[in-house]
Amino acid sequence: MIPRRSTARVTVQKVRDGQTRPRQDVLAVEEPLEIRLAYEEAGRRVEQSTSVTMRTPGDDFELAAGFLFSEDIVQNRDQIQQISYCLDSSIEEQQYNIVRVRLRPGVHFDPDRLLRHFYTTSSCGVCGKASLEALQLRSCPVLPEDRPVISEEMAHGLPEKLRRAQSVFEKTGGLHAAALFDALGNFISLREDVGRHNAVDKLVGQQLLAGRLPLYDDLMVVSGRASFEIVQKALVAGIPMLVAVGAPSSLSVELAREFGMTLLGFVRDGSFNIYAGAQRVKFTISAKSTKFVKPA
Amino acid sequence: MIPRRSTARVTVQKVRDGQTRPRQDVLAVEEPLEIRLAYEEAGRRVEQSTSVTMRTPGDDFELAAGFLFSEDIVQNRDQIQQISYCLDSSIEEQQYNIVRVRLRPGVHFDPDRLLRHFYTTSSCGVCGKASLEALQLRSCPVLPEDRPVISEEMAHGLPEKLRRAQSVFEKTGGLHAAALFDALGNFISLREDVGRHNAVDKLVGQQLLAGRLPLYDDLMVVSGRASFEIVQKALVAGIPMLVAVGAPSSLSVELAREFGMTLLGFVRDGSFNIYAGAQRVKFTISAKSTKFVKPA
Repeated sequence: MIPRRSTARVTVQKVRDGQTRPRQDVLAVEEPLEIRLAYEEAGRRVEQSTSVTMRTPGDDFELAAGFLFSEDIVQNRDQIQQISYCLDSSIEEQQYNIVRVRLRPGVHFDPDRLLRHFYTTSSCGVCGKASLEALQLRSCPVLPEDRPVISEEMAHGLPEKLRRAQSVFEKTGGLHAAALFDALGNFISLREDVGRHNAVDKLVGQQLLAGRLPLYDDLMVVSGRASFEIVQKALVAGIPMLVAVGAPSSLSVELAREFGMTLLGFVRDGSFNIYAGAQRVKFTISAKSTKFVKPA
Repeated sequence: MIPRRSTARVTVQKVRDGQTRPRQDVLAVEEPLEIRLAYEEAGRRVEQSTSVTMRTPGDDFELAAGFLFSEDIVQNRDQIQQISYCLDSSIEEQQYNIVRVRLRPGVHFDPDRLLRHFYTTSSCGVCGKASLEALQLRSCPVLPEDRPVISEEMAHGLPEKLRRAQSVFEKTGGLHAAALFDALGNFISLREDVGRHNAVDKLVGQQLLAGRLPLYDDLMVVSGRASFEIVQKALVAGIPMLVAVGAPSSLSVELAREFGMTLLGFVRDGSFNIYAGAQRVKFTISAKSTKFVKPA
């Protein structure tokens, strides 16, 4: 029994210059994954579905762990006793689309947390500010102010390093990537998915299960945009620097500034924008130093 | 009281060639939107939160309508009596992040539908096949087989037409777009959002509220990838043709083939791939006709 593959071949009609030719195309696989939580309540075993997400198969246990961590349902790896696929012998083909996370006996879990969405409050008070406050109420790691520090040159090269590490991306063109690097630009880990938040959950889940959180000395590079959810997931994992090939959103910038995270965006074609936390980017005075302006 | 804007200005440090300069940058606004459903149950007025999504403010009523339609909570516009912002006088600033959709008295709504996720079943049976079956059980519109028919030349030009229509995109670089065109390539409508599924919900919601569904003669163009959710939303709106600038996923292709939808992907640089429904693309025999190969 081999888990589903992350890519699939289909025959397509390739059209160019009025011609159409059959061609083999490689696609990213997208399949639903249900994450179930198994825990004890008053001595009884309870199992509850927490979410269904469309994801690319692969690293499913890490995805489940990272998702539960991001949603503040588990706070550390010791609370997790076991992660397994749900094996339903009556439905032979489908056992790899449900992951069961069993909490260690004695770990408290409040099922209401699943019904109450992360951003909602009891009044009309759902807004960016409320979302920021919800994160403040949660015991987020406090990011170290002065590390990691990277050089400007290294920052320019990160998207290319990410692409080189993306073997699956080369094949499909359809996958988002999230990767960890150290301050010198050394590659640590990479995860991919059709969903950008899933790629980050897989990466954070892997680090959680490896006992590496919080990631105070690492930086995360994402292949696309930096939405609020991506910044939030980086923050709870203790990552002080987020580098996005694409654009951040307004709320991402607010969140990064509020919590002291460095946020770089539009890292491409020899330039990038620093949206927050400029103190973690170091400039070398070069031949062009006459034009050098100190960062604010 | 003006709803929140869809873009925001921030001062960033632009880095190039070892220099850093302060610059005004325009970002896509991202804020949570809660969608509440108000309905009557045994003569009592009930209000229930259905979802919270991170979205770009603007076209919020259309987003709410499109979301409820995509989730099969409403099936036509007549079931909707009123859509309004939730006005909570105690929290002056936050009234534009909750939309209340009031169903017409007598419209049946099953609150369990919200708890039961679209893709889940009672057993281990959550898989792509189950997702396809769930759509089959739902009374999806049957797409007309032979329309719309577009020319190959027109298809090549659609991404550029989409970009021209994307005024906000030009400003932020951070927004996904979904647009409707007719078979001759005439522009019908466009919606944008930080979330690709939200852009589609806004577009479909607008058409629902305008009484235009099903959209049997239109095609939808999306700026990014075509995930399963995008194809599903197009299908329930009766759109027979989806054109994506980026890649589809494996499940998107399966879904399009199963339901007779035309799916074009990687429409860029003078070529595209036909993943499903080649009969809706017409080729003109040109000077290059000696090399012309008939589509399968």
